[in-house]
Amino acid sequence: MEGDQRAYDRGTSIFSPDGRLYQVEYAREAVERGSASVGVETAEGVVLAARRRVRSPLMDPESVEKLHQVDGHLGVASAGNAADARQLVEFARQTAQRDRLTYDEPMGVEPLAKEIADHVQEYTQSGGARPFGTALLVGGVADGRPALYETDPSGTPSAWKAAAVGRESAVIREFLEAEYRSDADLDASVDLALDALAAPDDASFSPADVAVATVTAESGYRRLPTDERRNALDSLGLLDESGSPQAS
Amino acid sequence: MEGDQRAYDRGTSIFSPDGRLYQVEYAREAVERGSASVGVETAEGVVLAARRRVRSPLMDPESVEKLHQVDGHLGVASAGNAADARQLVEFARQTAQRDRLTYDEPMGVEPLAKEIADHVQEYTQSGGARPFGTALLVGGVADGRPALYETDPSGTPSAWKAAAVGRESAVIREFLEAEYRSDADLDASVDLALDALAAPDDASFSPADVAVATVTAESGYRRLPTDERRNALDSLGLLDESGSPQAS
Amino acid sequence: MEGDQRAYDRGTSIFSPDGRLYQVEYAREAVERGSASVGVETAEGVVLAARRRVRSPLMDPESVEKLHQVDGHLGVASAGNAADARQLVEFARQTAQRDRLTYDEPMGVEPLAKEIADHVQEYTQSGGARPFGTALLVGGVADGRPALYETDPSGTPSAWKAAAVGRESAVIREFLEAEYRSDADLDASVDLALDALAAPDDASFSPADVAVATVTAESGYRRLPTDERRNALDSLGLLDESGSPQAS
Amino acid sequence: MEGDQRAYDRGTSIFSPDGRLYQVEYAREAVERGSASVGVETAEGVVLAARRRVRSPLMDPESVEKLHQVDGHLGVASAGNAADARQLVEFARQTAQRDRLTYDEPMGVEPLAKEIADHVQEYTQSGGARPFGTALLVGGVADGRPALYETDPSGTPSAWKAAAVGRESAVIREFLEAEYRSDADLDASVDLALDALAAPDDASFSPADVAVATVTAESGYRRLPTDERRNALDSLGLLDESGSPQAS
Amino acid sequence: MEGDQRAYDRGTSIFSPDGRLYQVEYAREAVERGSASVGVETAEGVVLAARRRVRSPLMDPESVEKLHQVDGHLGVASAGNAADARQLVEFARQTAQRDRLTYDEPMGVEPLAKEIADHVQEYTQSGGARPFGTALLVGGVADGRPALYETDPSGTPSAWKAAAVGRESAVIREFLEAEYRSDADLDASVDLALDALAAPDDASFSPADVAVATVTAESGYRRLPTDERRNALDSLGLLDESGSPQAS
Amino acid sequence: MEGDQRAYDRGTSIFSPDGRLYQVEYAREAVERGSASVGVETAEGVVLAARRRVRSPLMDPESVEKLHQVDGHLGVASAGNAADARQLVEFARQTAQRDRLTYDEPMGVEPLAKEIADHVQEYTQSGGARPFGTALLVGGVADGRPALYETDPSGTPSAWKAAAVGRESAVIREFLEAEYRSDADLDASVDLALDALAAPDDASFSPADVAVATVTAESGYRRLPTDERRNALDSLGLLDESGSPQAS
Amino acid sequence: MEGDQRAYDRGTSIFSPDGRLYQVEYAREAVERGSASVGVETAEGVVLAARRRVRSPLMDPESVEKLHQVDGHLGVASAGNAADARQLVEFARQTAQRDRLTYDEPMGVEPLAKEIADHVQEYTQSGGARPFGTALLVGGVADGRPALYETDPSGTPSAWKAAAVGRESAVIREFLEAEYRSDADLDASVDLALDALAAPDDASFSPADVAVATVTAESGYRRLPTDERRNALDSLGLLDESGSPQAS
Repeated sequence: MEGDQRAYDRGTSIFSPDGRLYQVEYAREAVERGSASVGVETAEGVVLAARRRVRSPLMDPESVEKLHQVDGHLGVASAGNAADARQLVEFARQTAQRDRLTYDEPMGVEPLAKEIADHVQEYTQSGGARPFGTALLVGGVADGRPALYETDPSGTPSAWKAAAVGRESAVIREFLEAEYRSDADLDASVDLALDALAAPDDASFSPADVAVATVTAESGYRRLPTDERRNALDSLGLLDESGSPQAS
Repeated sequence: MEGDQRAYDRGTSIFSPDGRLYQVEYAREAVERGSASVGVETAEGVVLAARRRVRSPLMDPESVEKLHQVDGHLGVASAGNAADARQLVEFARQTAQRDRLTYDEPMGVEPLAKEIADHVQEYTQSGGARPFGTALLVGGVADGRPALYETDPSGTPSAWKAAAVGRESAVIREFLEAEYRSDADLDASVDLALDALAAPDDASFSPADVAVATVTAESGYRRLPTDERRNALDSLGLLDESGSPQAS
Repeated sequence: MEGDQRAYDRGTSIFSPDGRLYQVEYAREAVERGSASVGVETAEGVVLAARRRVRSPLMDPESVEKLHQVDGHLGVASAGNAADARQLVEFARQTAQRDRLTYDEPMGVEPLAKEIADHVQEYTQSGGARPFGTALLVGGVADGRPALYETDPSGTPSAWKAAAVGRESAVIREFLEAEYRSDADLDASVDLALDALAAPDDASFSPADVAVATVTAESGYRRLPTDERRNALDSLGLLDESGSPQAS
Repeated sequence: MEGDQRAYDRGTSIFSPDGRLYQVEYAREAVERGSASVGVETAEGVVLAARRRVRSPLMDPESVEKLHQVDGHLGVASAGNAADARQLVEFARQTAQRDRLTYDEPMGVEPLAKEIADHVQEYTQSGGARPFGTALLVGGVADGRPALYETDPSGTPSAWKAAAVGRESAVIREFLEAEYRSDADLDASVDLALDALAAPDDASFSPADVAVATVTAESGYRRLPTDERRNALDSLGLLDESGSPQAS
Repeated sequence: MEGDQRAYDRGTSIFSPDGRLYQVEYAREAVERGSASVGVETAEGVVLAARRRVRSPLMDPESVEKLHQVDGHLGVASAGNAADARQLVEFARQTAQRDRLTYDEPMGVEPLAKEIADHVQEYTQSGGARPFGTALLVGGVADGRPALYETDPSGTPSAWKAAAVGRESAVIREFLEAEYRSDADLDASVDLALDALAAPDDASFSPADVAVATVTAESGYRRLPTDERRNALDSLGLLDESGSPQAS
Repeated sequence: MEGDQRAYDRGTSIFSPDGRLYQVEYAREAVERGSASVGVETAEGVVLAARRRVRSPLMDPESVEKLHQVDGHLGVASAGNAADARQLVEFARQTAQRDRLTYDEPMGVEPLAKEIADHVQEYTQSGGARPFGTALLVGGVADGRPALYETDPSGTPSAWKAAAVGRESAVIREFLEAEYRSDADLDASVDLALDALAAPDDASFSPADVAVATVTAESGYRRLPTDERRNALDSLGLLDESGSPQAS
Repeated sequence: MEGDQRAYDRGTSIFSPDGRLYQVEYAREAVERGSASVGVETAEGVVLAARRRVRSPLMDPESVEKLHQVDGHLGVASAGNAADARQLVEFARQTAQRDRLTYDEPMGVEPLAKEIADHVQEYTQSGGARPFGTALLVGGVADGRPALYETDPSGTPSAWKAAAVGRESAVIREFLEAEYRSDADLDASVDLALDALAAPDDASFSPADVAVATVTAESGYRRLPTDERRNALDSLGLLDESGSPQAS
């Protein structure tokens, strides 16, 4: 790191001479430190999947929150600072609920992602707080159409066919770019998501090591139970049964 | 950079000994870091156009927001920090809506640009926040007359026949100064805008790499769909079909 | 410690270049400085236990607050800054009471742990305050099901079959991982908790040196009196009668 | 610059050991950086004139705001930070409007200048903001009597027969002191103002390069259109037709 | 002191890398700088006693406030910053009064000590203030049962049979540990308290040099008048009549 | 300047080790930088006089505000930061007006001076602002008795028979001490004031260079017009007619 | 001064490692810089006396405020920062008035001194302000009993038979300790006060150099006029008639 950088990286209310916001860039590093999450959009719906770092066999892997239901038709996968992600998810839930009350219909994925992003931006401009050290993949189905958005620590939203956030997200994204098929069905998309999560280090997973959810027009937000995750991992040759067996 | 500069560039509430506001100048650098946007005013209306940096073929280029509809007759093209631009556009939308409610007619382009600029100025004088790292081109048609304004990070508004903000804006401006014809029709102005965007690096574009919108008295704010953008690029010899094909 | 670390560790509203929040990490050190607490979940209920550092035979060991009743069916074991823990317990009590008033039924363990965690997170993002230097084990029985959660200084909640916080918690956790049996009854779980507390230094305890509470569907939150603690320690070969005899 | 100065020039809420307010002095430098404005008081009314820096032939010179109408009988010429000037002009407009509502007659020039100055002073005493980097010439006619005031970044008002602010204001002031005639008529005063603006560098101007307004009891605030400015420049031998022709 | 300590000891809103709060530790030093106070709990009630530093024979020793009545049945002995102690006592009085109004019975010693402690904690977590540089011994009789609590600058409450705060409190505590008898009567407990205060330096006292109060169920809070203090000191061989004679 | 001084002179909310408030002392330097004002109390009333620094013959010397009418019977002469003085005079006017409304009689000189001083003190104790860099001489007649007060930047009021503030005030005060006669009439007191202003540098003045006002029971606050000032200067041998002739 | 001290003496919200509050200690230095005040309590009432530093024979010594009437039966003598003292006296007056309205009887000396002290303490704990650089002697007669209290910059009240604050207060206190007689009458107490003020430097005084007031049950607060002060000084051999003669 150069001496110059140091002079401008202690607060959100300051630009560097070349127009960068270092605290936002450092918050991106916080995202990179977190285990990865991926999202895949298909015609049927959206798949959200995440690696979980389970620190102990005594820990309930389900409590390592990487996937979050926001509304019946909306879900979020997160990477980075877990506590920050919880705050944003809480914000998302209240936003979706308020929107539903106002308009009497389910909130769209795009408007939700943009409201989250605008909320995140405010923490990058005013002093007295730090940016959110988390990135979200917001997926859902509204008006029958699936959509997948990313929000990053700068507060910029973007739409994706398939996206990754967190550790080695660049590698995972490359994998997704190579393997994504827009005509894949939901099961194949779950497989793609799991394969992508394993891509950076040729990992194998116990069912507890991953979380998977789908959002479809028919079933709404639905977490895949352990046996479905085990079956999927097994059929993909990614199953490692040596891990924590008590995951529900 | 001199040692002196360092002593005065950490906050918005401080002048340098020669009367400069370094944080505002650094915010201009943030604008220069962003991909360029241009605006062209003609007798028929205003053309807004922008280069988009699409990081991945899986990303929806339409979600890289460079052009923003503010009201039926008002649009904004932005450059610089995308999240900051979103905040200003939101401010612009609320301002235009409130103005319309108060006066029962569409808000003028000049008053809108000035209200945005005054809002931006406040972030350059008080401590506890940073300036907006974004510049806007505000274009529209009110009372049948087209108008094009720029607002910069200092909060200064200015009116232009044709303007550019963002990366290599000086080069693009030179191009516009050479090529601008006040009697050009709307289509020619779209062509001028696209040519100008390509000028700094003799770039060629896929339709996804650019966004174009027109604002006219007849049609209001209107985004050019992919095929119109492709046709325009093609006829200008700027078309590069190797890029992301799924843009809507 | 590196010079770099120093540059980013003075406040909660700042990330380090590698995306870390040093003040949160230092708050974890405050937890590690405190005497240990453990929690064990069984089918019958939850056991909470803690070592107490009694500074003088004239001090009432019961006033060294490591275990706290939150509601009839909810308890908390803490480690770290005792005064900080008291504030969080007070927050927990008010939250549980408010929840009970709103929904007319006992609050669940998971929702309570998550509300505490979200409260803790806020002290890690805004300037002007420090994080809480305490970790909590939140245990209880709701709807007949026992549950055990940990909240840490970052504001992240996690669920455990058996958990430890405070001094040498890594050693205690290893012990628990080796010895935990999910089919153990409540008495065996009390024994496991006491053995775990003694594990790091092969300690022996007077009854005053430890606090134990159980939360079951039948009896709710119940502190084990001195004689029960003495009997348990004695049968485990952990009793040291040389210590302070006047504990109630 | 001495080392001592550095120790006291970072904020408005601090005096230097010799009783100076460096931030106010630096704000004066911001005024000196801006293109010059002049004001001339005659028996018939007040002339306000300014040089405009038009960065491009595509820019509308009228949007380079140096002259501002405040009320029907009141105008302001500014120099320095243009965005700061806009804020003060907005303050002036609201003040004049409120005064008119309260007293049911046009606000006097002196009271307006003093209210502006008092507003400016507040930004020189409290922390958390910087001074205004702009100086205003406030001119108008009230009760049939013309008056011309200057407000500077310290918040001190002063009355002048003829005044200059902005770049090379000392040279322009010397010119005015030599050439000012109190019995000159309005046209001669316009000529004096234009000559004064040209004095520092023997400049010649296109009509777009200057803005001129008069305030008289008969006609109130009146901007001179392009042809009148061209004629005046021409008759003074100051016309340079090579510049931007499209100014309205 | 190490260089490291310096980096983390300037504010309450910051942890050191090893999880310490230096400002709280420094506040403990402020307590150690103050003359000592002791408290002794017996079956009959609680004895509070304190050394007083009377700077001049013209000073009224009674105005050196070390013992404070909080309610009819509640008293406080303090050590450290006298003005800080007054603020906490005022807080205690209001708290006890409000509690009495709410529940229509005298406030308990433990709840009062805990409310004081929670109030003290808040000054250790938020920026913009320093911790209280005082420790209190809160003694009283509620529901017929005597109780004695200490609150320290961290905001941690603790219950004691006999306790000491202030200068040489460690030596006094050792003395109390050796000499405390739980079956002593009130007079013997007064003697123990006076002996303990004299222990660190084999001091002898004039009656003005010490303050003594008892809290019993029968008599409530009662300050011992000069003659009783003289008699007690005399019978203990601690009387020094050379000092200030005019104490009331 | 010593290194020590530097450590304690950057804010109003800090004492130096020897109990000094450097920012207040620096504010006194700001007063010393301003041109001098004097006040003289006689049996008939109070004389206020001031030197004016007129920067240009085009400047209206009357607008260099050194003397200010506060109420019909109250005036103020100021020295130091002119904009700060304006704020205090505005405060004085509102105070006198409010007092008159409350008590239905003219406000006394002493109460007004003390309210100003208390207002000034507040800027010397709280952070976030600087002291007022101005000293006032408050003179007037209430209940038929003349009175003259000084308020300084520390917020201390004092009463004088004759006083001076501003540049070379020590020399002027010496002159006044030597020449003041308590039985002088009003005209002689005007002469004394003008002689005193000229004392430091044996100056001669044009009428525009000085301002003079008297406050008497009969005539209230009255500014001396140009001819009276010229006559007085002439008779004192202080007249310099070479200066700015247009003063009203 | 040690380097260590420097690290902890810039604000009120920080303890030094040895538990000291340097800003409070520096405020005590501000008190020591001020001319001395003394108070003497007798059976008849309280005497307050002060040295006045009259900077010029033109200054009204009565306006050098060292003695202040607070209520009909209450007075204050101050030393240190005069403007700070005025603020505290204003606080005292409002407190005494409010107390009288609430309880319909004159406020006691002790409660008033304690309310002042608590007010002073708040400026020693919170950031953003400095302590009061003044010490007060609060004297009065309530319920027929005289009382004399001191409040210091830490906010600690204390009661005295005779007390001194300000320059050389230690020497004056020694004098008072040697000479104070509790059975002295009021006149002898005035003499004692004047002798004490002269003690440090064997000073002699003009009547203008000292202020004296008595507070008795019969006469309430009463300032001694010039002739009484002259007679007292003369009979004590302390009279110096060379000084300012015009004191009222």
